[in-house]
Amino acid sequence: MSDRQEDMDAAKEDATGKDGAEAKPAIVLVRPQMGENIGAAARAMMNFALDEMRLVAPRDGWPNPKAYSLASRADRILDEARLVAHTGEAIADCHRVYAMTARRRDMFKPAMTPREAVADIRAALAGGQRAAVLFGAEKSGLDNDDVVLADTIIHIPANPAFSSLNLGQAVLLFAYEWFHAGFTPEPPRPLSGHMAPASKEELMHLFNHLETELEDADFFAAVPDKRPVMIRNIRNLFQRANLAEQDVRTLRGIIKALSHGRRWRRQAGGGHSESGGNSNS
Amino acid sequence: MSDRQEDMDAAKEDATGKDGAEAKPAIVLVRPQMGENIGAAARAMMNFALDEMRLVAPRDGWPNPKAYSLASRADRILDEARLVAHTGEAIADCHRVYAMTARRRDMFKPAMTPREAVADIRAALAGGQRAAVLFGAEKSGLDNDDVVLADTIIHIPANPAFSSLNLGQAVLLFAYEWFHAGFTPEPPRPLSGHMAPASKEELMHLFNHLETELEDADFFAAVPDKRPVMIRNIRNLFQRANLAEQDVRTLRGIIKALSHGRRWRRQAGGGHSESGGNSNS
Repeated sequence: MSDRQEDMDAAKEDATGKDGAEAKPAIVLVRPQMGENIGAAARAMMNFALDEMRLVAPRDGWPNPKAYSLASRADRILDEARLVAHTGEAIADCHRVYAMTARRRDMFKPAMTPREAVADIRAALAGGQRAAVLFGAEKSGLDNDDVVLADTIIHIPANPAFSSLNLGQAVLLFAYEWFHAGFTPEPPRPLSGHMAPASKEELMHLFNHLETELEDADFFAAVPDKRPVMIRNIRNLFQRANLAEQDVRTLRGIIKALSHGRRWRRQAGGGHSESGGNSNS
Repeated sequence: MSDRQEDMDAAKEDATGKDGAEAKPAIVLVRPQMGENIGAAARAMMNFALDEMRLVAPRDGWPNPKAYSLASRADRILDEARLVAHTGEAIADCHRVYAMTARRRDMFKPAMTPREAVADIRAALAGGQRAAVLFGAEKSGLDNDDVVLADTIIHIPANPAFSSLNLGQAVLLFAYEWFHAGFTPEPPRPLSGHMAPASKEELMHLFNHLETELEDADFFAAVPDKRPVMIRNIRNLFQRANLAEQDVRTLRGIIKALSHGRRWRRQAGGGHSESGGNSNS
């Protein structure tokens, strides 16, 4: 089995779950013009685990080599795309149809954001219905005759002075919302070896080590009444840092290294050269 | 003032609000390669009302004509982009830095979705902090040395077997989430003329008209005990349709037209030819 086949299978398994039957909306590209945009739409679908593309009368015929060259590893979606002549054929088996439009339409239909539409679609699919989303041609968008076929209009919230998105981007944003709604974050990976989080015991050893050395360096000597609050601040600082075991070892090495000269000088009869805590508080 | 200038001003006003001072995160492109992707990132920012681009050592120098040719009306963002040599310079004035990465990193930093990151950024900005989001080069993504500079990693939830997004798409999805979090749906526009919703009075007239004609056509005659539930079903059907004034007029015209033959025949002495309600129930 090639790597590519494995990727495909992994994608399929991820997308469809154990029973191979997660229901998903079909993506219907209505009279798309540039093959590149069909390929970009396929990639976006693959990125976010949508499988089913339907093509209504693509301008440059079908199959289109430019679509394939842009789709790269998402070409399975193009291979399986269903080609039809009219929008009505593309949605004949669906119960709920959504039209992605940039412009508002005086059509007296409910309008939703992609996020709202995805929730609506997931509810319809859970009830055993089939759903499709219509995307129009690059320049002109959907004809009113296509929009009439939809139950609901989808608008992408965007800067009203600069709202134009290309076909691939519109499919990308819808597909992203589709995937996001079904996304459960991976549990944090067990952190191996050096990234294991420090135990509280290791943290207490660190605190004790640091505070002993600070005492020894007369860090608190000039401001004895501030000692408790200073210790609390220092502990909070390291507590917040969410240290790993290795971090604790590193910090203890640092403390040891910094203390080395002082201890050495003292043993050799020299005085303290470090400044006290007052300049650090 | 040109149309284009007006568009720009409208975009700016929309983006910044009345006081011209809405705080937004800076988008930092770290060692981007293709000019086209820099232009696509600028368009995505303009689509979703982000203003501030910073460029760390773009491979092909700066300014880059290919970036401008793709950016089209978003070229103001490129004009104002700040060029720096190192990532550290790009974020020196920021308090919170986020790194968009495709791969998980064993960096022991919090990881967020774009949606979570946007909420986090908005909270930081509201507290007077400045924030930046780092995006890496097309192929290689961010170096670990760049990720180290970030407080938080952003992962886009995607099909694990096909998660690669190009630079423009990654910026698009982040910017979309940024805009969406601040988006309040426009109130429904007052529907003018023929699209005004029907009043309940108009609806009641419609129901009365229809039910009178159905009585006259003996629609209920065969199943008199089912009459109340049939009337309720018919009323519910039209109630759900959320009719406009014009729809009501259209429907009343239809009822009148369909009834015309029956009334005419009766006046001319003919019998009923329509079937009763039992075949329609």
